[in-house]
Order: sequence, then structure tokens, then C-alpha cells
Amino acid sequence: MAEYHGLSEIFTTTETSLCNNLFKSSNPPFHSPTALILEISPNPFPITTKLSDLSTDFIPIIKNNCNLDNLEISDPELETFKSKFNGENNNCNVYVAGHVIVFPSYNGFFEKPGLYLDQMFVRKCYRGMRFGKMLFSAVALQAEKMGMGMVDWLVADWNEESINFYEKMGAHYIPEYRLCKLYGDQLQQYAKKSD
Amino acid sequence: MAEYHGLSEIFTTTETSLCNNLFKSSNPPFHSPTALILEISPNPFPITTKLSDLSTDFIPIIKNNCNLDNLEISDPELETFKSKFNGENNNCNVYVAGHVIVFPSYNGFFEKPGLYLDQMFVRKCYRGMRFGKMLFSAVALQAEKMGMGMVDWLVADWNEESINFYEKMGAHYIPEYRLCKLYGDQLQQYAKKSD
Repeated sequence: MAEYHGLSEIFTTTETSLCNNLFKSSNPPFHSPTALILEISPNPFPITTKLSDLSTDFIPIIKNNCNLDNLEISDPELETFKSKFNGENNNCNVYVAGHVIVFPSYNGFFEKPGLYLDQMFVRKCYRGMRFGKMLFSAVALQAEKMGMGMVDWLVADWNEESINFYEKMGAHYIPEYRLCKLYGDQLQQYAKKSD
Repeated sequence: MAEYHGLSEIFTTTETSLCNNLFKSSNPPFHSPTALILEISPNPFPITTKLSDLSTDFIPIIKNNCNLDNLEISDPELETFKSKFNGENNNCNVYVAGHVIVFPSYNGFFEKPGLYLDQMFVRKCYRGMRFGKMLFSAVALQAEKMGMGMVDWLVADWNEESINFYEKMGAHYIPEYRLCKLYGDQLQQYAKKSD
């Protein structure tokens, strides 16, 4: 994803940082940065037998009505993206197809807080199959469940395909805001001005 | 601030929603949406006597070296913005001059999480006195203290004065991203697609 956005130069994420930021048990899901993982399988999902192992803060959304039979999927990295939920006999062929990262947000102009969507990613070989919509609707549903009033995210101005997709889903595209980011040496220097 | 941004139409904040979103004791400062209040006084600050009443998660930053004597301040709403920290004899003349709202954020491309700055506001009669810098540096210092790597915020593209201010402080202005926002009926409809 960083490559896609031309941000490889600033990319500093590591496996350790992902674990610390997303998967600490002291941070309950959706009250801190949270990843939703999209997994697909041609077989019925084995995950129901594992529900007791999962956090009660989020019950997986299982969709059995997606007809993947008619889709020609050719995943060149099938083994790399094999899910850990593969049934007791490791025979269910569950694979990771995408993810979304969200965290709780607040906008002082609105009565209710929201979810900020930091990343949505569907792996290349799974695009055009409505999986992006699935991820988005899971986020919208979660926001509703938590009594939140909005979902916010950023899109690159050159990404017409995504902008069209977002406008079709009824999102408001707000052209006037620009992102500012203070980090690195500049952050440290500015923090010192407070001494 | 909503008026300044032409957003009065969507403004739904209430006193109750502010209390619920910003001042719940179950949400420790900086781990959920948090307001920093800028208060000024021509007299020495009485706040040190009240430290025991305050949360230990944030110790107020007190600056006694600001020479306000040479500044001509004429506050037309002095009584409305009188602080609750006015000393035992209510004689310290502490007034609210501005605020900033932040919440923890996460960007999947970076190793460390950050603070997202949702609002910074200095009341009109206190502008041009470097109070904005003070608020920003307090936020930068807090991010540093928490081991965070960045502070992010949005600025309107027509707000040249602010953009210049941010670039001078060393912030990166990233022109390519646009804000998208899903709320209201559209959010509810999209959530239903997940059923």
C-alpha cells in the first residue's frame, strides 16, 4: 500500500510496531487502532468453532452467500496469505484478501464521535469483486453499533476510481481540506518550544 | 469556529455531547478525545494550589515569562470566559483565550502512533500574540512524552495565513489528500449492507 501511494520512503512500520499498535489486549477493539481482516474461502467457514477463543468485543461477520464459484481467482501468494483459521484439519483453505484499519475519532462540530479509517486494502488479485464494499459496510455497521455518527477517511486527489466509488456509496467528498503532518526532527524541535 | 469554516449547518455539538466526548473520567487524557484549554491572567497563576484536584495524567504547563503587559487586550466577553481556576478569593483574573482538541491516531505507514489535532482555536481578541504556537507546542510536547511520532491535522486550502504558519513551524503540507465523510442516512444505509 505504501508503494501504491509512493510513500515507501517514509514507511517505517515493522511487525513489532504493528503488534504494539493494533493487537495489545489492553486496548479493546475499536477503542484504539483496530484492524479488520477480510478472509475468504471456497469452503464453509470453520471460524464458528473458534468463537470462544475470540474477543467478545467483535464477532466476525460471516457471509456465506457470496458466490465465489463464478469468479476466477488466481492468487500468486496463496501460501503466504493462508489464514490461521483453517479448521482443525487445516483443510478449509481460508486466505487473507484484504484489511481495513480504523480508530475512534472526534470532530468538535458533531454531536457524536466517529471512526477514522486509516487504510483500506484489497489485494490485487481480489479487486473488482465487491470486497471493498464489504469492508466499508463492516466499518459503517460497527460505527452504528457504537452509537457513532460518522466514518472519515482521506483519498488521493488523483485516485478517480476510489473517489467515484466513495461518492456512489453516499460519502461526502470535501475538497477544501489539506493534510498537515509534523514529525521527525521538526516535531522534537517544536516540542522543545514548550519548555 | 464552525461559523469561521462555514459549517454552521452541520454543527450539532451540545454541552452534553462535549461532556460525554471529552470529559468522561473513564477515558484518560490523550487516550481518547482531549481538550487543552489556554488560560491567561495578568496575575501569577493560582493553579498550583489546585494540582491535587487535577488528573495526574496531565500537569498543566504554566508559563510565567509571557509579558502580557505590553499587549493591549480588550476582551468583550470577559465575564463569559472567566476560568474556574480563579484562586480562593476569586481574584486572579484568569480567562479562557483558546483551546485545542486532540485524540490518538494511527497511520499504518509509520512505526509510531500519533496525535490527531481536530481543532485549534484562539479567540479573536487574543490572536497575533503567539498563543497558537503555545498550544501547538504543548501538543507536540505531549506527543513526544507519549512516545508518539507525529501530529496530524487538516487545514482549509484557502487559509493561507494558517498554511504559512504551519510551514514555518516545519510541518509537511501534503496537497494530494481529500477528506471523505460518511454520515447521516448514508451511514445507516451503508451499515445495513453488511447484514
